[in-house]
Amino acid sequence: MSQARIMDGTALARRIVEETAEKAADLTARTGTAPCLATVLVGEDPASVTYVRMKQNRCRKAGIESRHVALPAGTTTGELVGTLRELSADPGVHGILLQHPMGPHIDERAAFEAITPEKDVDGVTFASFATMSFGLPGFVSCTPGGIMRLLDEYGVDPAGRRAVVVGRSAILGKPAGMLLLARDATVTYCHSRTADLSAAVREADIVVAAVGRARLIRGQDIKPGAVVVDAGYNAGNVGDVDFDSAVERASLITPVPGGVGPMTIATLLEQTVDAAARQLGV
Amino acid sequence: MSQARIMDGTALARRIVEETAEKAADLTARTGTAPCLATVLVGEDPASVTYVRMKQNRCRKAGIESRHVALPAGTTTGELVGTLRELSADPGVHGILLQHPMGPHIDERAAFEAITPEKDVDGVTFASFATMSFGLPGFVSCTPGGIMRLLDEYGVDPAGRRAVVVGRSAILGKPAGMLLLARDATVTYCHSRTADLSAAVREADIVVAAVGRARLIRGQDIKPGAVVVDAGYNAGNVGDVDFDSAVERASLITPVPGGVGPMTIATLLEQTVDAAARQLGV
Repeated sequence: MSQARIMDGTALARRIVEETAEKAADLTARTGTAPCLATVLVGEDPASVTYVRMKQNRCRKAGIESRHVALPAGTTTGELVGTLRELSADPGVHGILLQHPMGPHIDERAAFEAITPEKDVDGVTFASFATMSFGLPGFVSCTPGGIMRLLDEYGVDPAGRRAVVVGRSAILGKPAGMLLLARDATVTYCHSRTADLSAAVREADIVVAAVGRARLIRGQDIKPGAVVVDAGYNAGNVGDVDFDSAVERASLITPVPGGVGPMTIATLLEQTVDAAARQLGV
Repeated sequence: MSQARIMDGTALARRIVEETAEKAADLTARTGTAPCLATVLVGEDPASVTYVRMKQNRCRKAGIESRHVALPAGTTTGELVGTLRELSADPGVHGILLQHPMGPHIDERAAFEAITPEKDVDGVTFASFATMSFGLPGFVSCTPGGIMRLLDEYGVDPAGRRAVVVGRSAILGKPAGMLLLARDATVTYCHSRTADLSAAVREADIVVAAVGRARLIRGQDIKPGAVVVDAGYNAGNVGDVDFDSAVERASLITPVPGGVGPMTIATLLEQTVDAAARQLGV
């Protein structure tokens, strides 16, 4: 069996970011206002600080302003909700990214719901989840949205095919399944309580691994010719799929890193510019 | 093979309604206020008129007041949204039921979203869909909620079992799958574009038929010993499952009528009294 073709997320993300930068420049020229993403961080978790800084850098390179709101670690849910409501109402802010996790003392759901859906460019609100689920216009969760773009780029039409999503988190597994269902795939959700994961994955024409367990899915579980999307990112730059064995069975596969990862930020930037265009009436 | 045991929705619904009536009487005695369900109907579609009247009758028998708002067929989306916002803000109304379908000139989603989630006792808002999907507290769509109650009543624990939901409507198939997933089933959504429905259904330990096609699912597709829930209701009192052949293979099965159907109104009444209790601070 020949090796799978690699789905190159780095290259596709680069192209999306370039197109987004052109749209941002055009929007700025036409309206005198640059798109603006507010980034909100509670506390000083080093990984979160790094992520937010990376997103700000990417914004700058794409001609998107970013406004950073750093809140102390002791911020209450009520204070955070107040900040997010202000940003939701602020006409100078077009998109809001609330970096998470935020720590156990914060009611994350209350915080997310304080983001107006019009600025929910990270796709974390109830409204965004529902519009994804019902195939309605709205913002998508960035990683699932990036996965769908990768599938489109490589000519994978989910309609009528069996898709198996391993993982059911609110911002990754669940919306990824809903986006695949909206595109007419027959979708199965697997998770830690699934009795026979291997058997379920073997049915899949499209596998989305989104569970955060290193090399959980092995080549022997991949149906020959299946499309394998690895959204896992575990210690040591390792995905949820055992790449070396899966690449021998799949027809298309994402590497880790360089597959799904770069698509997440690209989707965030693209949605920020889309949000700005809508809010600026262009 | 012996015949399946019948899941008697009529009997369970009767018990839930009796318990709900007791709760409603207790609430009325303690607060001086009876629970109140607002029913909103646009136009005079005979089936919808009948459904609403039936719900009002059931409310009355359970000690729940109902306030009926009849809007003319020509009502615009904006007018309907205005009415629903008023009812959402009205402290004398604890639950809101918007009878649907409402006709092609109404933006149904805009109308549903005008119902405050605190009064969404029919489980039709984005917020209710999301809370169902994320396993959070909130109101459930009545038919899927009724299905889960039936499974509980008959000792069916979905955890770790394969559940196949046939149908993906916003108020039936999609939330039914999400409720099963929240209870740790491995959930597959099938629909009109599913390539091999029989093969998918044969994997199921629990089948939920929610597609509205008479006798689509036949006994030969039922895994021996599976639990079969038929949420279909088609012309001639026929479900989506061919009962006579499925009853020979299943371990538990809902009849049509008398299975899922009665559970829907029972769930509506129960959620109305729960909403009233919360709003009255009891």
